[in-house]
Amino acid sequence: MTRTASSVGIVFPQVAYFDVPLRLSSGTVLPHYQLVYETYGVLNERKDNAILVCHALSGSHHVAGQYAGDLHGVGWWENMVGPGKPVDTERFFVIGVNNLGGCHGSTGPSSLNPVTGQPYGASFPFLTVEDWVESQARLADHLGISTFAAVMGGSLGAMQALQWTIRFPERVRHALIIAAAPCLSAQNIGFNEVARQAITSDPHFYGGDFYAQGVVPERGLRLARMLGHITYLSDDAMMTKFGRELIGGAPHFSLEVEFEIESYLRYQGKKFSERFDANTYLIMTKALDYFDPARATGGDLAQALQPARAQFLVLSFTTDWRFSPARSREIVQALLDNRAVVSYAEIDSNQGHDAFLMENEDYFAVMFAYLERIAGECRP
Amino acid sequence: MTRTASSVGIVFPQVAYFDVPLRLSSGTVLPHYQLVYETYGVLNERKDNAILVCHALSGSHHVAGQYAGDLHGVGWWENMVGPGKPVDTERFFVIGVNNLGGCHGSTGPSSLNPVTGQPYGASFPFLTVEDWVESQARLADHLGISTFAAVMGGSLGAMQALQWTIRFPERVRHALIIAAAPCLSAQNIGFNEVARQAITSDPHFYGGDFYAQGVVPERGLRLARMLGHITYLSDDAMMTKFGRELIGGAPHFSLEVEFEIESYLRYQGKKFSERFDANTYLIMTKALDYFDPARATGGDLAQALQPARAQFLVLSFTTDWRFSPARSREIVQALLDNRAVVSYAEIDSNQGHDAFLMENEDYFAVMFAYLERIAGECRP
Repeated sequence: MTRTASSVGIVFPQVAYFDVPLRLSSGTVLPHYQLVYETYGVLNERKDNAILVCHALSGSHHVAGQYAGDLHGVGWWENMVGPGKPVDTERFFVIGVNNLGGCHGSTGPSSLNPVTGQPYGASFPFLTVEDWVESQARLADHLGISTFAAVMGGSLGAMQALQWTIRFPERVRHALIIAAAPCLSAQNIGFNEVARQAITSDPHFYGGDFYAQGVVPERGLRLARMLGHITYLSDDAMMTKFGRELIGGAPHFSLEVEFEIESYLRYQGKKFSERFDANTYLIMTKALDYFDPARATGGDLAQALQPARAQFLVLSFTTDWRFSPARSREIVQALLDNRAVVSYAEIDSNQGHDAFLMENEDYFAVMFAYLERIAGECRP
Repeated sequence: MTRTASSVGIVFPQVAYFDVPLRLSSGTVLPHYQLVYETYGVLNERKDNAILVCHALSGSHHVAGQYAGDLHGVGWWENMVGPGKPVDTERFFVIGVNNLGGCHGSTGPSSLNPVTGQPYGASFPFLTVEDWVESQARLADHLGISTFAAVMGGSLGAMQALQWTIRFPERVRHALIIAAAPCLSAQNIGFNEVARQAITSDPHFYGGDFYAQGVVPERGLRLARMLGHITYLSDDAMMTKFGRELIGGAPHFSLEVEFEIESYLRYQGKKFSERFDANTYLIMTKALDYFDPARATGGDLAQALQPARAQFLVLSFTTDWRFSPARSREIVQALLDNRAVVSYAEIDSNQGHDAFLMENEDYFAVMFAYLERIAGECRP
């Protein structure tokens, strides 16, 4: 079958204001906040064709399409979301939202605190996946969506989708849990901790209140991102993509770039440090570390997932060593223990954790088939 | 069989001075330098019972025993080297040497440059595994050892042992290559690069000439070591050792230590930054990146290893993801292609790369058996 896929084209971010106070997991109350979001496609009359796309660590509400006048900045899941794509915007009403604590327009540490007129900085509260789901539910209310056809995401985004099924079982018909884990391993936490230490030990961090100093802890952010990139790629993919050839064929005996991988990491680190907020990075990694639905049930994940009523698609990628297939199978096993309806596929890919963002025939075939089924349920 | 093992006891570092200039791989000539070393056991009359132990990234000449008045600081391979241990000092004459460029007494970047009276700092040349082997051969000459019963090491130490067999085929009867790779992967180089960037971007690095400023780039060293430690341990071992329980059972919503692994990494980082030289760390990681005997033979490792006349024991550990068993098997395959005499064992261990430093029944059984055989060859 030949499909004709295209882009959602020019898109516009929108803003929703909330002034009903939000009590966070930490106990802090946010008296008011805003969420920036984008929508693609049309909400049908029965309002049953909405899909919420949750973003991962460094993502945003800008899932697909591009902004007028910025023709290069396509959304982070452009290959997945659009007309004729797996998440077909001719059939689904798709929502991307920047999470609370973010740095792309939703209220976060770099936003001005209306009380002080200064950026929140270190005073912005830490957040949890539970908090995000709570705030996303309010956005759904705002948009008049009582039940999502699907909530989906990869990595940290998948954790939000999972949490949706626990917290709002009646509001999620399908959950697409891609490249996820039911909680971080000690190794995952370790990498996050090194990233955080890189940021907080940067003399330009100023305890989180660097905004007033006119600087950013860009050295720390660069290191955090370089490290992140190593964990997103498989050993294989890195070797294939960068190899270990010395530039010029022989050692330079200096600290300049000598291997392609060094150049790639430095570039990625620099680019990221120019666009991302350091405090948001800390909040996102902490939310990752904290996520552990089975903490409340003495480690019993099946029991933690018992409230869920959704049908599940769980996907993992063979060379993902950040959240290995074994971690996805923990989720699948817990769902099976609960006699939940769950489909699982382990996709053969050499792309590591990043595979969830890449086009891959098997991956997309599964996504097309599963979303086709969901679309069928939405037909009037 | 019951073995009675004990320690070599109180040991003394010795210093060898060399004033025959050493031309390094980089082209730089070191007019003179010193190597600090330790020896355990007695060199027999035929001088054929000597074993050279090469150290890894952060090791030193202090392989076994302890210094008078410092009863806690046992050598880094205390479990492996001593009376009744696999490397039995009642049968072998064992030499540990601090590599050139090190920070434990051999000439390195923190040594005073006799020409300027100041520490070498950034002016100290980068080094290669080839340079180390060259300098170690001079130490062997100095000690009157023409042929080693064995040259051995783990990780970067194993690379030196491998290089010995290529450069001085007639001087090595056995090479023990433990937890090694024939060259770093792009991922390995990537981790090294993040560590180097952490050090060089520390404002206290001063381009390598921090000594004169009375500071050390301890933030950078801490980060480098924290990152290193994650790669030394397996995901499994970290989970077993540290778990993911929150201290106090619930999130603190702060940047303080919340998980055991954070505490461990911070402690290891801090300890290391107080004892290790930042420039030495850069030199060691660069030497790792550069090592690639097959570079000279168009990627053909067998051809690169063709000069070797030694017999080989190659050991890897199942959960070592820094230098996985597959990397050791590349070495074994190349040796087999050359019809070299090689024994290979893949040791079941959940300790990751660090396994080479740990006592493990299977590992030690292989070491005992192999070294017993070597000892048999040395009997008068």
